[in-house]
Order: sequence, then C-alpha cells, then structure tokens
Amino acid sequence: MTIVALDLEGVLVPEIWISFAEKTGLDELKRTTRDEPDYRKLMKYRIDILKREGLKLKDIQDVISTMDPLDGAKEFLDKLREETQVVILSDTFVEFAKPLMKKLSWPTIFSNSLVVSDDGEILDIRMRQEEGKMNAIKAFSSMGFKTFAAGDSYNDLKMIRLADNGCLFRAPKNILEENGDLKIFEEYDDFFSYIKGCLV
Amino acid sequence: MTIVALDLEGVLVPEIWISFAEKTGLDELKRTTRDEPDYRKLMKYRIDILKREGLKLKDIQDVISTMDPLDGAKEFLDKLREETQVVILSDTFVEFAKPLMKKLSWPTIFSNSLVVSDDGEILDIRMRQEEGKMNAIKAFSSMGFKTFAAGDSYNDLKMIRLADNGCLFRAPKNILEENGDLKIFEEYDDFFSYIKGCLV
Repeated sequence: MTIVALDLEGVLVPEIWISFAEKTGLDELKRTTRDEPDYRKLMKYRIDILKREGLKLKDIQDVISTMDPLDGAKEFLDKLREETQVVILSDTFVEFAKPLMKKLSWPTIFSNSLVVSDDGEILDIRMRQEEGKMNAIKAFSSMGFKTFAAGDSYNDLKMIRLADNGCLFRAPKNILEENGDLKIFEEYDDFFSYIKGCLV
Repeated sequence: MTIVALDLEGVLVPEIWISFAEKTGLDELKRTTRDEPDYRKLMKYRIDILKREGLKLKDIQDVISTMDPLDGAKEFLDKLREETQVVILSDTFVEFAKPLMKKLSWPTIFSNSLVVSDDGEILDIRMRQEEGKMNAIKAFSSMGFKTFAAGDSYNDLKMIRLADNGCLFRAPKNILEENGDLKIFEEYDDFFSYIKGCLV
C-alpha cells in the first residue's frame, strides 16, 4: 500500500503569502520557501514585517477566505483519494489552512500552528517538529507503507528524496536547475498518471 | 496538535462480517475481533468457511455495497474532521473498505489488503504490519502529534492505552468487564464532546 504525501501551497492552492503580499501591496512578503530554504528565518522575516505594518492574523485570514484551490486541484485530489491514501504535508499553519481544506473536501493535513496574542498579533510559530515533512515520510515507512512525495519548494526536497518515489510539480527554475534528476510535471493529468503508475 | 485515530467497524460502519453472515445465513461468520483477539486466527477461520462454501470476494463486495455507515456516523466524522486531523485505523481490507469510505466522504484510512486468486477466491490476508494500530499511534507521536484513540474491540485496546487519551465506543460487555478503567460512550454527541475536550 502506498501513501501519497503532497505539499500544499503551489501544488494544490496558491502561495498564501504571495496572495497576501499582492492584496496588501507589500512586495517584501513575496519571499517564499522557494526563495529562502530556512523556514524559521523566513517566518521571522514575515512576522517582523507584519508587526511593522500593524497587520494581524485576522487580516491574513480575510485574504485566505477569498482564495480558491488552484484550477483543477480539487478534481485531481478527489481522484487521487479514490485511488490511495493521501496526506498533505505543509509548513503552513492550521490557522491559515482551514478554509482551504474545506474547499478541498477536508483532506488530511499535517501542518504547524501559530502563537497569537490576545489582540490577534502573530507573535511566533509553533512547529510540530523540525523537519516535519521528512519525519512524516519516515513515520509512514515505519507503518509499513510505500511512500510517494511531491512538492515545489526547497522544503520539499528531503521528503521527495527520502520517499520510495516522488517528483516535483510546478517547481520554479532555481529548484529545477539544482535538481535536474527529479521528474517534474506541470499539469494535473500527467501528475496523476505518474503517481498512479507508482502505486503499489 | 492532536490526531484522532478511530476504529472503523462498530464505530463508524456496521461489522462487515456480521452483515455478510446475516445475508448468507452462515452464523459461523458472526465471530469478530470482539470475540477472538487473534486476528490472523480469526481470518483463517473465515477464509476456510468461504472456501468450503465456494464464496468469493465479489460475494462479500456485493453485500458491502448495500451497507451504509451507522446512523449519525457521517455527521459525527464530518464535525470531527473540521476540528482536527482524523485517521481511521482498521484491520479490514482496502478491497472491502472503499465503498464505505466513499459514503463517509473519503476520510484517510490505514488498513490491510487481501491476496485474491485470478478467479476471485480469497487466499490470504496481507497485513501492512503486525500491531498496525499500535504502531500507527507510535508513528503519530514520532511526528510530534498528541494522540487520541477510540474503538470497540480487543484489537483496539493497545492503541487506546498507548495514546495520550482514548476511550471505548459501543464496546460489548466482555471488553467492558475487562477494561472498567476506560471511559465508554454510546452516543456520537457524547463521544464528540469528550474527544473535543481532549484536543490540544
């Protein structure tokens, strides 16, 4: 039996911070894990900007509530969930993910959470553990599963390489150049067919 | 973050083998993990009866396709999946579970599979691993989750006792008598409230 682990942002839904950056006009917030491999550093950078601008959790949630999954993502995920077990492994936060999970018919997601002050200011992040994506793949293996992993960012590479099979999906140029040995897909149909061929 | 692990049969859907026994009139097939703690022994007993009666996988699947989740189970599970991550841990087989998972809106399920001959005879079972339920709880802990587990049978006791929190749901008398220290619930509303109170 194979369990499929998918990254969330860029693979099934738009990059949340990029959408927020566009909405607020704060171009500095367009930096993602595709640019900055160190997630804690990236989040500190983001939280400092939010603080400077007086932006709160509610402001981000308001933007997320207007977001939809990427075109075709729900159909892809629905089809895949009929074939095998799928878990979304994301470094995002439960406080952000919920409205998007609802739009994807509540797939299982393993993510992180935020530390928020009483007046709604984001103070810090609470990671479930370090290297959460890679450790999830290890844990699935320990349960007797074959594993497949896919994503688009620096923080997906370890899980993709550790899994029995894996690939990139819509990864940016810098990731591709450094990982020319990994398969990459741009369309959900091809992506689905490749995953299906790897299922045992 | 808490992950909730639920047994399938008796908790969310009827006992598949009991339904099949009733449909075929083969009372010997009413034996479940609530009566026989050794699952391999139980499955060998069942497969021997199927062989003797000339019954095939298709005959069981035909019965399953007429089954529905227990009254209120889907609403309970839908509500719980909005609150936290839920994984069904079951000793049943993917070949049996699929139509029921569809009726439950495709929750994540970790189960086993069957070895079936070309003409559809069930030859053997393929367990993902020994002690799959207990090992899943260990694996969730290794991923930094708090764990909650619930079930009704002998094969659920180890996962319930290993998890950070847990309880029985509609367990039969023999399980209750031997496990008087565990909380038990009979209705989904109470069950949901108890789980919700344990979430972190």
